[in-house]
Amino acid sequence: MSSLPIRPDLVGKSAYGAPQLDVPIKLNTNENPFEHDGKFAADVASELEIVMANANRYPDRDAIKLREKLAQYLSDATGVSISPEQVWPANGSNEVLMQLFQLFGGPGRVAVGFEPSYSMHPIISQLTNTSWMSIHRDQDFEISNVELSGVETQVNVILVCTPNNPTGNITSLEIIKQLHDSTSAMVIVDEAYAEFSDSPSAVTLIQECPRLAVVRTMSKAFGFAGVRLGYVVGSTELIAALQLVRLPYHLSSLTQQAAISALATAKSLHLKVEQLIEERNQMTAVLLEMGFKAVDSHANFILFGKFRNQVEVWEYLLNKGILVRDVGIPGWLRVTCGTSTENSAFLAAMAELKDSKSE
Amino acid sequence: MSSLPIRPDLVGKSAYGAPQLDVPIKLNTNENPFEHDGKFAADVASELEIVMANANRYPDRDAIKLREKLAQYLSDATGVSISPEQVWPANGSNEVLMQLFQLFGGPGRVAVGFEPSYSMHPIISQLTNTSWMSIHRDQDFEISNVELSGVETQVNVILVCTPNNPTGNITSLEIIKQLHDSTSAMVIVDEAYAEFSDSPSAVTLIQECPRLAVVRTMSKAFGFAGVRLGYVVGSTELIAALQLVRLPYHLSSLTQQAAISALATAKSLHLKVEQLIEERNQMTAVLLEMGFKAVDSHANFILFGKFRNQVEVWEYLLNKGILVRDVGIPGWLRVTCGTSTENSAFLAAMAELKDSKSE
Repeated sequence: MSSLPIRPDLVGKSAYGAPQLDVPIKLNTNENPFEHDGKFAADVASELEIVMANANRYPDRDAIKLREKLAQYLSDATGVSISPEQVWPANGSNEVLMQLFQLFGGPGRVAVGFEPSYSMHPIISQLTNTSWMSIHRDQDFEISNVELSGVETQVNVILVCTPNNPTGNITSLEIIKQLHDSTSAMVIVDEAYAEFSDSPSAVTLIQECPRLAVVRTMSKAFGFAGVRLGYVVGSTELIAALQLVRLPYHLSSLTQQAAISALATAKSLHLKVEQLIEERNQMTAVLLEMGFKAVDSHANFILFGKFRNQVEVWEYLLNKGILVRDVGIPGWLRVTCGTSTENSAFLAAMAELKDSKSE
Repeated sequence: MSSLPIRPDLVGKSAYGAPQLDVPIKLNTNENPFEHDGKFAADVASELEIVMANANRYPDRDAIKLREKLAQYLSDATGVSISPEQVWPANGSNEVLMQLFQLFGGPGRVAVGFEPSYSMHPIISQLTNTSWMSIHRDQDFEISNVELSGVETQVNVILVCTPNNPTGNITSLEIIKQLHDSTSAMVIVDEAYAEFSDSPSAVTLIQECPRLAVVRTMSKAFGFAGVRLGYVVGSTELIAALQLVRLPYHLSSLTQQAAISALATAKSLHLKVEQLIEERNQMTAVLLEMGFKAVDSHANFILFGKFRNQVEVWEYLLNKGILVRDVGIPGWLRVTCGTSTENSAFLAAMAELKDSKSE
């Protein structure tokens, strides 16, 4: 790339993304393993047929109908009354985070995150020329008083991922509120996996924390990774300000309609979440029984270990046709909860391994 | 928005976007006026039904199949052999431009554009903290030697919109090559309206100009504004470098499939373009006959005038149920070429006006 005048801080970097390998059992990207049933797909497709006929027109720039549905869903899910003016959708939570960083980050500004966490956070920070400050979580991947004391009061953006990807554990609302009240920063809570946890959502803090933005996605609980629908919830003031940085007509008519259709049937889609939670709890129990470690997960994946060399274990599983994720934490790997069959295959492979590789 | 810690340079700004008013005849956003026929919509919907069933999985991050189709389309349209590795799609040309600015712009870097032009260019420049330098086009909205001499050799990004929005005229390939060869800048040619022009595409310059990026969209010629599919064509090196700034899984499975389906039927969709070109030429001739001015357009819109006060004319047309665009050029308005019926209504309204308002 040397002949192109690209930004100096990007020279020599490589693109983000999980290795994509063609294996039978893919447990590496935290996808929901369940295909949508035929009736749902057909119902959505018949709505999309109408959308396609009118695709010559721009989409609703303000996504009014979708925001109404999202607000209703959030109100039902959290018990907090949320209005459409408090919700803003984009193409996946990545684009939502990008918009938040464009609004609150930038040159001369500092964002802080508690790592290991979602690896796109520092990348989006860099893309928006925001200085990234990383605070390491404690040995149990928690944010304790020691880590909190590392947050300087003048930071501009604070990121908390809860349930945290890739560790699966949660951060309490008390800590989030403390981070908000002890700084003048915008506090972004990434709740991509919220539906897999029974702990209360940070949405319940919005009223008392004006500088709070809660980011969510339909990728996981709704099985909508392919549709790309993330959203942010916050004050009406926040959503109004985001209009300054959103690209006009950023969200296609197809995406808007597919999400509207899915939200209309949210209840049945959530049955799958219950099943995944059960799978996760069972997988965790079996891994612990085998003598492995597994972080208590509130998400649809488990961080497990602890290995002398996690790369060897990753390769061992790959040879068995099972793809998990090496997220770069020495000794640990992340496995997505798949179907019962997939999870059984994974656990069977781990059972074979338990005597030879664990620390 | 004062209570939120937003970036100081965004305070007091307002969001970009054409006023959206509910009127019978909307000729303000350069949309293709033709709905897609029922068979096409049904065919695409049946493909989307399959996509929806598998929406639990992330989309193809590299959009391989779509890039193959786009490369084939471009090769056919321009006579230049373009490979899939030379094409990169995103959610509308706005996102493509954003990615190019993230790669080549940024703090301490300067982008230059010839205005009036597409008003998102300076906005995207600002969003990426790139300094924006505006060079005014000459009185005929052309880029002549005077304007070219205003481009400093150390600029980082040069934007040329051709056919130019909102003026409709084109910039020659000679000028584009001159801009490329006389600077070390990345030259971005925005060809959103290329299919409405019989002048050669800047795609024909890619081989000899390594720092050239040609941006296109399916919004206009393909009647796909609702689908949001823009793309950039350039060297394989450029497309590889763009992977550093693209958000992973930025383009939904629905968008990818809808675009693939439309490209498979590109020929019939292009019939509508021929019709719009005829409408445009006729509208231009009639406006000139009436004694108005109209810039020679290679796009699906016409910049017309010249009025003592274009706001009065905009309001006059609005009162007749016709929405055109005041793009902020004193004395001029922009009208999108619509259906024959819509264009006749517009011309009838202008005929009534001709004796009272023209300069």
